[in-house]
Amino acid sequence: MPLDSPKDPAIAAKAALDPENFALANCVRALAIDAVNAANSGHPGAPMGMADAATVLFRNHLKFDAANPDWPDRDRFVLSNGHASMLQYALLHLTGYADMTIDQLRNFRQWGAITAGHPEYGHAKGIELTTGPLGQGLAMAVGMALAERGLAAEFGSDLVDHHVYVMLGDGCLQEGIGQEAISLAGHLGLGKLVVLYDDNSITIDGPTSVSFSEDVPARLAACGWHVQSCDGHDGRALDAAIAAAKAETGKPSLIAMKTVIGFGSPNKAGSYAVHGSPLGADEAALTKEALGWSAAPFEIPAELAREWRQIGARGAAAREAWEARLAASADRAEFTRRLSGDLPAGYDAAVTAAREALFAAPKKAATRKASQMALEPLTEALPEMIGGSADLTGSNLTRVKAVDSQYTREAPGRYIGYGVREFGMAAAMNGIALHGGFIPYGGTFLVFSDYARNAIRLSALMGIGTIYVMTHDSIGLGEDGPTHQPIEHLASLRAIPGLTVLRPADTVETLEAWDIAVRNRKVPSLLALSRQDVPQLRLEAGDENLTARGAYVIRQFGEGRDVTLIATGTEVAIAVQAAETLHAEGMTVAVVSMPSWELFDAQPEDYRRATLGDAPRIAIEAAGKFGWTRYVASEDDVIGMTGFGASAPIDRLYREFGITADAVIARAKALAG
Amino acid sequence: MPLDSPKDPAIAAKAALDPENFALANCVRALAIDAVNAANSGHPGAPMGMADAATVLFRNHLKFDAANPDWPDRDRFVLSNGHASMLQYALLHLTGYADMTIDQLRNFRQWGAITAGHPEYGHAKGIELTTGPLGQGLAMAVGMALAERGLAAEFGSDLVDHHVYVMLGDGCLQEGIGQEAISLAGHLGLGKLVVLYDDNSITIDGPTSVSFSEDVPARLAACGWHVQSCDGHDGRALDAAIAAAKAETGKPSLIAMKTVIGFGSPNKAGSYAVHGSPLGADEAALTKEALGWSAAPFEIPAELAREWRQIGARGAAAREAWEARLAASADRAEFTRRLSGDLPAGYDAAVTAAREALFAAPKKAATRKASQMALEPLTEALPEMIGGSADLTGSNLTRVKAVDSQYTREAPGRYIGYGVREFGMAAAMNGIALHGGFIPYGGTFLVFSDYARNAIRLSALMGIGTIYVMTHDSIGLGEDGPTHQPIEHLASLRAIPGLTVLRPADTVETLEAWDIAVRNRKVPSLLALSRQDVPQLRLEAGDENLTARGAYVIRQFGEGRDVTLIATGTEVAIAVQAAETLHAEGMTVAVVSMPSWELFDAQPEDYRRATLGDAPRIAIEAAGKFGWTRYVASEDDVIGMTGFGASAPIDRLYREFGITADAVIARAKALAG
Repeated sequence: MPLDSPKDPAIAAKAALDPENFALANCVRALAIDAVNAANSGHPGAPMGMADAATVLFRNHLKFDAANPDWPDRDRFVLSNGHASMLQYALLHLTGYADMTIDQLRNFRQWGAITAGHPEYGHAKGIELTTGPLGQGLAMAVGMALAERGLAAEFGSDLVDHHVYVMLGDGCLQEGIGQEAISLAGHLGLGKLVVLYDDNSITIDGPTSVSFSEDVPARLAACGWHVQSCDGHDGRALDAAIAAAKAETGKPSLIAMKTVIGFGSPNKAGSYAVHGSPLGADEAALTKEALGWSAAPFEIPAELAREWRQIGARGAAAREAWEARLAASADRAEFTRRLSGDLPAGYDAAVTAAREALFAAPKKAATRKASQMALEPLTEALPEMIGGSADLTGSNLTRVKAVDSQYTREAPGRYIGYGVREFGMAAAMNGIALHGGFIPYGGTFLVFSDYARNAIRLSALMGIGTIYVMTHDSIGLGEDGPTHQPIEHLASLRAIPGLTVLRPADTVETLEAWDIAVRNRKVPSLLALSRQDVPQLRLEAGDENLTARGAYVIRQFGEGRDVTLIATGTEVAIAVQAAETLHAEGMTVAVVSMPSWELFDAQPEDYRRATLGDAPRIAIEAAGKFGWTRYVASEDDVIGMTGFGASAPIDRLYREFGITADAVIARAKALAG
Repeated sequence: MPLDSPKDPAIAAKAALDPENFALANCVRALAIDAVNAANSGHPGAPMGMADAATVLFRNHLKFDAANPDWPDRDRFVLSNGHASMLQYALLHLTGYADMTIDQLRNFRQWGAITAGHPEYGHAKGIELTTGPLGQGLAMAVGMALAERGLAAEFGSDLVDHHVYVMLGDGCLQEGIGQEAISLAGHLGLGKLVVLYDDNSITIDGPTSVSFSEDVPARLAACGWHVQSCDGHDGRALDAAIAAAKAETGKPSLIAMKTVIGFGSPNKAGSYAVHGSPLGADEAALTKEALGWSAAPFEIPAELAREWRQIGARGAAAREAWEARLAASADRAEFTRRLSGDLPAGYDAAVTAAREALFAAPKKAATRKASQMALEPLTEALPEMIGGSADLTGSNLTRVKAVDSQYTREAPGRYIGYGVREFGMAAAMNGIALHGGFIPYGGTFLVFSDYARNAIRLSALMGIGTIYVMTHDSIGLGEDGPTHQPIEHLASLRAIPGLTVLRPADTVETLEAWDIAVRNRKVPSLLALSRQDVPQLRLEAGDENLTARGAYVIRQFGEGRDVTLIATGTEVAIAVQAAETLHAEGMTVAVVSMPSWELFDAQPEDYRRATLGDAPRIAIEAAGKFGWTRYVASEDDVIGMTGFGASAPIDRLYREFGITADAVIARAKALAG
């Protein structure tokens, strides 16, 4: 099968272990070398080292059909060490994904190409997720495996029965989120998760021994994993290991593959020099010679190309059989709806009923409690909602009747105990959303959005509708003190492009916020919710979701405006209180509730101008003032925090930090002067 | 010793294992119960469960002298599960720390008290660090142990020879950062790190079995730790385990203590109900009866109080002997300087020489390269500087000659390979800074500040001078693409109170930024540095550190101002280029370089007004626009990013995203109208 024999005897010895696999893997290696050289930028080492294993996986195990990349029951392939992107692009091209043309490979890392430096979700079919920030690919894969099991329990293995394969390197295992994912996967016994670890002993700073010397298989075994080790360049050993991993259905599997980074490169193999730099023309030539590869750059010998195309079509029959089963299934409509992300008939009515109930009997409640109230009918109407918390269920109030079934090793329920693993939770939710079939939501304290931050960013970058429930959203958290009181968090979340941050003011806005979040299947939402009670301010019944406007006049005192008070969340009640006093003293005041900056900024200019008005404006928010000058003239016009919080009962904190109606009134008078 | 015998036979059986220790531990339990009840807020369960172990530790092992809490060679005590704060406050009070009065305990969690909900560094002596955000206490402890070993190597074990003891719970072990710390500590064989794990099988959401089922000792053993298990209520077994842990000098030690949360409470022990809620008056009475405790609330029987005071004074002789050794040491002056945080004679001259060299021979360089150039003389002049990187040394350029000695298991060098563990690195640096004797700095990509974010926040909250070196600070990172290009990061870091963010424009500003960072021993600094080259813009020799002004006019074109261009970092050169063209076309332009918002905002109002001027302003920064309305009228006046980046060569990216001199010119003309 190889057109030439490898010149290097050590390489020839490896090739001899499984010559056909070696020849196919050389196609991947050659394309990776060529594309990185053409871009003069990229990471050739990992694709060269992982090519043999990836070839075995795609050739013998991965369930996919390149001509139908959206087949819902395909195996998911996760390249967690995303810098090895050329491995995946080469595989997609070779197996015949229509959009992954050779020109895309030639334009690796160039403007407008779908072949970005790291795999970007949405750029090309077959890229199941965005990777690059290390450890998160693995954690998202855990979410995919959670979704697979949940969906299989609902719809049966005739429709849902696939694996999630992950390739990763040392970095994913050094990152803390890797361990969070490992621990959760082991705890829940995710038997369909199979991880191939590229154990190449090389890290950017040199040999991994500069910073990493643990016994990885023993660590994972301690976390309930099935572990194996093998030669990562021995096709037959790899094949047997993957088969054994699939046979173990009660535990996730690790295959620690001993590999050589930059395999084939006479002068750079086994060195960190090949991690993130092109081989260059000379070494590329030497490498190809050593590998027995004589084709021109970006060319694949016909026989190998044909075989790769056959691999890409290998799953067609299975897919067709699956399509037939789906067509015959009584669950066809519901399964199709669930995978499409469409909301069911009955959802609108559930929201409307919940709205009407609030208008009929207004309630004073913390917005976290209002969130729980909203979740009751929504989770009832939407079987696709799957909840959870990073071990703060009783505080986040994320568990309600319809999801009151724990996701366990034995049975996949609708509530996931993510443990004290905020980052792992966020990434797993991304994986659930990417898999399809579910709308994931999960809770923690707003301050711990810090821990999960890069996963929230990836939700936004990928454009997926993960829902973050972040309670205890200000100094209103009280006695737990400054480590637990968010200050800069609202600003820093609003700064993330493509994330919708919602800080509702009362029960009605909270319901509306949930409705927005649920409908937004391409945009992540983050609900910032209070620990403390607030009155229901929205009392006039009506169908319009005003929160979807981002901001609106919630109270008007008198005609015209001497001042406009803009507030979010729990501080809207303070603004209303201040406005009442100001009006009693003769001023005209508009109070604007602004639950979402992003939604407001997306409104037509006329609406924005009318809402904000021309009068002096004051913003009130129990958080850092950073960013508010988007809407007010100066940070002096923000009634907010200038430093960290403190440990004390809530009323004392608001008073000491001057977030009070009196402070609003004083500033309003000064401005209206 | 106990005044009464425990009423509960199971408790009596535990008490009988070490009656004296049990009686002393009851003092801690009683105070924790009383303070949480008085506050009607807090976490009684963990202090009650860990009291026996903490008593053994303080009584028989911890090297400390309550009358001299700043003794540099004291053992460090880290309560990583900070919600158990009353355990520590009780211990500090009982052992006689002067500031921890009984009134402070009575005012637990109240405004102005030093007894915050979670231990806050700086509130009271004996609180070595702020904890509460889980996992970080352990990671900071790793930094303390790194510092101890490094300082001991420099000054000898006569002056430096102490342990770092950590108490923690399940949460710290579930958080990913916990694993990062565990892995690094095991890798470096930090034998003086001893961890007592409160294995109480309870988490907030219920039994730990809802989310956590791994074999923790096996996991840590796989990471190179010495592990033991014992009964956490058996004083003698605990004593033997701690002794064995100290005897193991080549590995960090874990003691997994099987405990009962809320130990002693008849109706709540062993339940999550006692984790975060007061016992209440009735259950407190029942608990005290069960424990054999009859003293009034906040009262300690005299005999027990006396014994606790003796424990607090137990280390006095050792401290005096240490003082004598220090007095006699040839290293006395240098050791004292190092621990005080004062900079040495010669430092100023080193900075001045470096400045003069830059003015004498201006250099075009990436600011990461300029950082490396600055580090050369600074690390030479400051033996306390200890560097590192989260596995991006060749990219961050953090390694220079004076620190070119790897910190290994065998010998503590001045450069730490933190591995792919950004969060662990940041927290470990905090621990190094808290320990004293070193100025830690460490590098990663700016985008991965996300991973480390809550540790950066803790640097600021604690007020310590950790230095973050964050390179590849914009889309200028190029081909690696959107996952690696920071957009919202500058804004989100500027939003953190008490952090100084510095984005220097050239070699001179970079040197100045380093000088600021090094001098700021009570404020953390974050340097945002470029991948790409920039010209040296500062050409006029002078002594003043203009970067310390935060912003200043770096170029003035003509007299007066038609427009002011404000830029940071690599975009200052673009602003200068645009200004030159505008001036050639007849406009007067001031270019303001603004390396640090925080430093600028701290300037006198006159200076700020004069610098910003009254003319229309435009801001230029290759990052998200969020927050810039602090200085410009509208985000329309910001030449910056509105979404995520892309994968392409740098020049193409700046062009495609419109961050160009042409865009600045067009906007300036529109504004000057």
